[in-house]
Amino acid sequence: MSLPVYLDYNATTPVAPEVLEAMEPFLRGQFGNPSSAHAYGAQAADAVAKARRQVAGLIGAHEREMVFTGCATEANNLAIAGAAWARSEKGRHLITSTIEHPSVAAPFRRLQAQGWEVTVLPVDAYGRVDPANLAAALRPDTVLVSVMHANNEVGTIQPVAEMARLARRHGALFHTDAAQSVGKIVVNVDELAVDLLTLAGHKFYAPKGVGALYVRTGTPLTPVLVGAGQEHRLRPGTENVPCIVGLGSAAESARRMLPELSRQLRRVRDTLHDGLLEAVAGLALNGHPVERLPNTLNVSFPDVSGRDLLAHVEAVAASVGSACHEDEDTVSGVLAAMGISLLRARGAIRLSTGRFTTVEQAREACNSLVAAWRSLARAAHP
Amino acid sequence: MSLPVYLDYNATTPVAPEVLEAMEPFLRGQFGNPSSAHAYGAQAADAVAKARRQVAGLIGAHEREMVFTGCATEANNLAIAGAAWARSEKGRHLITSTIEHPSVAAPFRRLQAQGWEVTVLPVDAYGRVDPANLAAALRPDTVLVSVMHANNEVGTIQPVAEMARLARRHGALFHTDAAQSVGKIVVNVDELAVDLLTLAGHKFYAPKGVGALYVRTGTPLTPVLVGAGQEHRLRPGTENVPCIVGLGSAAESARRMLPELSRQLRRVRDTLHDGLLEAVAGLALNGHPVERLPNTLNVSFPDVSGRDLLAHVEAVAASVGSACHEDEDTVSGVLAAMGISLLRARGAIRLSTGRFTTVEQAREACNSLVAAWRSLARAAHP
Repeated sequence: MSLPVYLDYNATTPVAPEVLEAMEPFLRGQFGNPSSAHAYGAQAADAVAKARRQVAGLIGAHEREMVFTGCATEANNLAIAGAAWARSEKGRHLITSTIEHPSVAAPFRRLQAQGWEVTVLPVDAYGRVDPANLAAALRPDTVLVSVMHANNEVGTIQPVAEMARLARRHGALFHTDAAQSVGKIVVNVDELAVDLLTLAGHKFYAPKGVGALYVRTGTPLTPVLVGAGQEHRLRPGTENVPCIVGLGSAAESARRMLPELSRQLRRVRDTLHDGLLEAVAGLALNGHPVERLPNTLNVSFPDVSGRDLLAHVEAVAASVGSACHEDEDTVSGVLAAMGISLLRARGAIRLSTGRFTTVEQAREACNSLVAAWRSLARAAHP
Repeated sequence: MSLPVYLDYNATTPVAPEVLEAMEPFLRGQFGNPSSAHAYGAQAADAVAKARRQVAGLIGAHEREMVFTGCATEANNLAIAGAAWARSEKGRHLITSTIEHPSVAAPFRRLQAQGWEVTVLPVDAYGRVDPANLAAALRPDTVLVSVMHANNEVGTIQPVAEMARLARRHGALFHTDAAQSVGKIVVNVDELAVDLLTLAGHKFYAPKGVGALYVRTGTPLTPVLVGAGQEHRLRPGTENVPCIVGLGSAAESARRMLPELSRQLRRVRDTLHDGLLEAVAGLALNGHPVERLPNTLNVSFPDVSGRDLLAHVEAVAASVGSACHEDEDTVSGVLAAMGISLLRARGAIRLSTGRFTTVEQAREACNSLVAAWRSLARAAHP
């Protein structure tokens, strides 16, 4: 049986061929520990240094400002708990939004349980935080604001640059989880004016097992994991050299391919959307019509559950929301936060395209989805 | 220039060919996110489940008791902070030893700074903790004891089984950092009677970027990193599928090769030792003569500094101690804790052999080391 068309790039991407090629020497002969003083160690340390320059280069950062982690979840934990702990003398107030990934929401919940006050900003019907709400929430004792760059489920892009500047004027640090935007659109830490930014290797063709946190020079941060002195004493543990090399290579590719890649993603995604709109009366787009990741299409089908629909479309691999809580049979908290009705949320699926998705695959997937929807909707309303 | 003979397996090992072969499908077509409900996700989830069985099988654990982490440092942080936080109602007293890896020592220091009382047990001249000292230190409010299984610098194996039983009788949890022993000697969690055990992929031919924590069923543990629900809600973040598969494969190999591999390691290591003893008058072994990892040889050369010696032996890649603090120009804290004189500690180097080290390489390395030592010692005493 051939595998389904993969339309779940927001869950994870394949490793790009040039990325795997860059990694391979470090999975074979060049296996040293970067902390070792001998030739094997030097090879590994040089490779990590090169990857650091590549990743920094993709987001307009200085190489000194990049901390490699084991995943984006770890980077989010480090950014949020690390900044809160390091700045607790300023105050105990934190701000985030209702639509963050669990790896952002959970650190805030834990800090709240430890006595921090957390303001959770709402989003509008498109999933956007209104900067005016942030302006109203900022206080002299606000230590940190964390609002994601682009949402994983609906793709809505937040007005981060505006919000980060508001935070800065109030002396609060600004973190953004850019796990979904890096590699899909141009991301620049100075344009965004953020102090901390998380990125995830396996969302843009690097392997799983590696993420990074951008830490603007001068930003105070207390490590969450402690041990030896790797990664500017912010992330102990022997560096995952092959995966870090892969992240560097993926960053290099993204820098080379953007913004043309964004246009390609949009073309394929819109082919899919147009096809569905044409065939499915009542199809509703979830997320912002314009300020949205170019690869993400979250749509609600009428009269069916998204979960049932996907279960009936063997030819398409997609999801009803975030892979990180796929096992929970509830509607998406993101859609609920956007004020979308339960019925519409129930019919939602997330289709996310990638570098390797073709227009032809988009058409095939569209046909399969439409056929399955017709059969299910007919069964519901015979 | 050809690369030196690699005698730094305690710092990191190459990835074994069969391990890389097992990983490759997951670096290529089988790239799914294990949390995804579709075919790509199912492939990845099955692979992680298989690896979990393999790793559990190596140490006599149940697959439900294994938590995959990004590295052994993370596993040590989770074990120590996680157990302390989860059991804080029992008391606020912790016990560890003077010769732990920084990824164990640092979490204890942090807990101490947060008001926990930490007893640090001394070691004898061979680097062994005396169980009688543990017995004397255990109190009704002792929550956790953590003593490493085998030391990374001198290879001394601790009487973990005896100590863990003492701890259990006092109602304290016992954790052991087995990063250096797993894959070199037979390790069984029931024989050792431990509640928590850390292992590190890149110390036994799996790739960097993956470790695991054994958590005995029923052991209370609070996660250190928080986010989505992966790894029994103890370690959030998308699973590093290729590296986890690699860890499983390495565990399978180790189970197949042990205890014969231990004998092979010992043979090669002893060839090296015998050669050095014959040529270097005054060579001193650091660590236990018998209760020691079969691959580890920490020896002090007279009249030279270990660092100078290694700098003069281009044909050998070894270290003066732990790679994790290679950049610090101080003598080893482990040797200091063993009561070894500063002069002798200064002359120490760590030679660690592995599965791929041949007797011939051991002889070559021995000759190179002896020649360099002679030239340096002659310069010091002309």
